[in-house]
Amino acid sequence: MTYLEERIRKDGVICPGNVLKIDSFLNQQIDPQVMKEVAGDFYRHFKDRGISKILTIEASGIAPAIMLAAELNVPMVFAKKAKPSTMEGQDHYSKDIYSYTKKTWSQVVVSKDYLKKEDSVLIIDDFLANGEASMGLVDLVSQAGAQVAGIGICVEKSFQPGRQRLEEAGLEVYSIVRIAGIDWEKQEIYFKEGH
Amino acid sequence: MTYLEERIRKDGVICPGNVLKIDSFLNQQIDPQVMKEVAGDFYRHFKDRGISKILTIEASGIAPAIMLAAELNVPMVFAKKAKPSTMEGQDHYSKDIYSYTKKTWSQVVVSKDYLKKEDSVLIIDDFLANGEASMGLVDLVSQAGAQVAGIGICVEKSFQPGRQRLEEAGLEVYSIVRIAGIDWEKQEIYFKEGH
Repeated sequence: MTYLEERIRKDGVICPGNVLKIDSFLNQQIDPQVMKEVAGDFYRHFKDRGISKILTIEASGIAPAIMLAAELNVPMVFAKKAKPSTMEGQDHYSKDIYSYTKKTWSQVVVSKDYLKKEDSVLIIDDFLANGEASMGLVDLVSQAGAQVAGIGICVEKSFQPGRQRLEEAGLEVYSIVRIAGIDWEKQEIYFKEGH
Repeated sequence: MTYLEERIRKDGVICPGNVLKIDSFLNQQIDPQVMKEVAGDFYRHFKDRGISKILTIEASGIAPAIMLAAELNVPMVFAKKAKPSTMEGQDHYSKDIYSYTKKTWSQVVVSKDYLKKEDSVLIIDDFLANGEASMGLVDLVSQAGAQVAGIGICVEKSFQPGRQRLEEAGLEVYSIVRIAGIDWEKQEIYFKEGH
């Protein structure tokens, strides 16, 4: 069992609607031991892929992304979230994405200076559920003419379609922890084998 | 000369109005070597202060804060930015702050679960200029009844009043790099000795 899985079992809060709250160690308060383990695990998996840059999205993707960047010794770039159309322009790549949780559209935006066509980009995020954020980041990489080397996720909700969407787009997804199901009534979290 | 100062001299862009743009290695694209140096420097300075928690503000404070948290082996918490009054409530500490750059009010917000009265909190941020963000974080710590152990800043604009405001409030500020002045016409950055 990974340390992250252990923390999820111990400190994850299962809320009505089968929502898992893990912001005491991954989202708002961040346990550096979890980050060290996650970065080390991503490093072992991705170290020989010729990665030139790590791309994530603010805010909670930044911690695992910079810890891994320090191990791979490559720059880390974070896309910003903006309201649709507030940051259009010649200087930025942008892509509208839909939040199923908040039921609103937003935009992921990154400066053209920091994604180049020669880049081999590893995308890192804390959560994968419907895959909107990750697909948005993949789109930014494509706009730059660069390659996606893979997608590293801390916690995947395997019962939601994100992973399948990314794999159908020909991308490799590597998740530290995969959650097969959450049962609020039984207060149970079911994990899935493999990464 | 620190590595961060070296990068500012080499890659900092001086824009009209004496604005320094360093988002190629500190803000949007982040150089992990800079983060390692910064975290190591903060660690040496603050390691014997009995710090129990690191507090920063999304998004660009997160990278130095988590790197330092990994060295000190304490949790890192990031305050979120919100529109005024969108996150009021029993669960959060919040404080309105003014952005002199954007000329707008916003709010810094942190869950009450992650700041406790027994905490000794080190505040970390990437930039210190007018000190609004740092003063806001200090206020959140005070609301929790906790202590501020110090304030660690990556780049201080010493010609703006942030440091003085914090020191007048009885707080210690430790900055990796201090900038005494920026001259757009001469394309010069002047550094200040000390931390």
